[in-house]
Amino acid sequence: MTDTLLETAPLAVDEASADRLFRHARSTSQWTGAEVTDAQLQAAWDLAKLGPTAMNTLPLRLLVVRSPEAKQRLVEHMGGGNKAKVEAAPVSLVLAADPAFHEHLDELFPVYPGIREQLAPAAEVREQMARKNALLQAGYLIVALRAAGLAAGPMDGMDADGIDREFFAESGWRSLMVVNVGEADGEGSPHPRGPRLDLEQVSRTL
Amino acid sequence: MTDTLLETAPLAVDEASADRLFRHARSTSQWTGAEVTDAQLQAAWDLAKLGPTAMNTLPLRLLVVRSPEAKQRLVEHMGGGNKAKVEAAPVSLVLAADPAFHEHLDELFPVYPGIREQLAPAAEVREQMARKNALLQAGYLIVALRAAGLAAGPMDGMDADGIDREFFAESGWRSLMVVNVGEADGEGSPHPRGPRLDLEQVSRTL
Repeated sequence: MTDTLLETAPLAVDEASADRLFRHARSTSQWTGAEVTDAQLQAAWDLAKLGPTAMNTLPLRLLVVRSPEAKQRLVEHMGGGNKAKVEAAPVSLVLAADPAFHEHLDELFPVYPGIREQLAPAAEVREQMARKNALLQAGYLIVALRAAGLAAGPMDGMDADGIDREFFAESGWRSLMVVNVGEADGEGSPHPRGPRLDLEQVSRTL
Repeated sequence: MTDTLLETAPLAVDEASADRLFRHARSTSQWTGAEVTDAQLQAAWDLAKLGPTAMNTLPLRLLVVRSPEAKQRLVEHMGGGNKAKVEAAPVSLVLAADPAFHEHLDELFPVYPGIREQLAPAAEVREQMARKNALLQAGYLIVALRAAGLAAGPMDGMDADGIDREFFAESGWRSLMVVNVGEADGEGSPHPRGPRLDLEQVSRTL
């Protein structure tokens, strides 16, 4: 958004990967209709799960919404224009945070024995840790879906509490966002990409 | 972490990129000492900035901590073992959320005229939106730093309020985490990688 000519270092990945993961990728709402296979979601997760989280907590959870019945249950809780987007997408993922992540920590973070028991009574702390680290993982997942050849259309406009009551009453998961997934038709979006803030607009150096 | 043999689809990026961005990347604490150039940070940001955020809000902000004096100011607010990690890293980035992101929305999100004015009095809503979307961007940035050939060592153990008072009293930015950045020495970590949760452990399909 500025005219400054800034020196930029060469990348350590090839141009095609940089294009696919970032430069050509768009928040997608236009799909070819090609099926999203479990094997594709598996490939994406096998990359995304490797991204770092605090104390290896890995609190991100996914509800994979495929069937027309489940799609309609989700649509009820989406905001205006997002209802049609869920209906049009081959698959919609509800990304959620699991405040009960601590139950896995004996296995996931053995270097800190007792952390599971220490966190058990701290529900508020767990909720905050779960949301924070699951959002970080959501960033990894969106890139990883693209690495698996899929396009992603993340959406915020929804009744999160309604979704939690509808789908997560038993698990206690907390919905964060919905990400539509499929094969992009052309650019995948009817709109031009929005402008971005440049490094000098978002950073200070000391 | 299970013995299930799952079908996995081929990736749409080359193996070297998948290795660099996810499979071989570690939360790094061991560095060669090679300098991190502004051009490298620029290359990383030029990818990370393209990741999607709600209403193109782009609330992530970066404090680039380079000088020994600034490093010492930051070290004061880091938890126990993280003090030495900040001291050892070529550069430490304080990742922060800017609750005043709305001031850019006339430019960033022109399809919704008036959103800047609508959000102006809603400080609590802005704070939540800023944190949520900045964390998502933190996920993009960690991957993008790796794409620029850098290693990242994200850390949570810090006095966030202390950092905000020390560095962000004027800007109102809210610190989220610190990410050490540099060139990894070997694997970059003295520890083996922790286990991860597999897709069937974190997902349900409807």
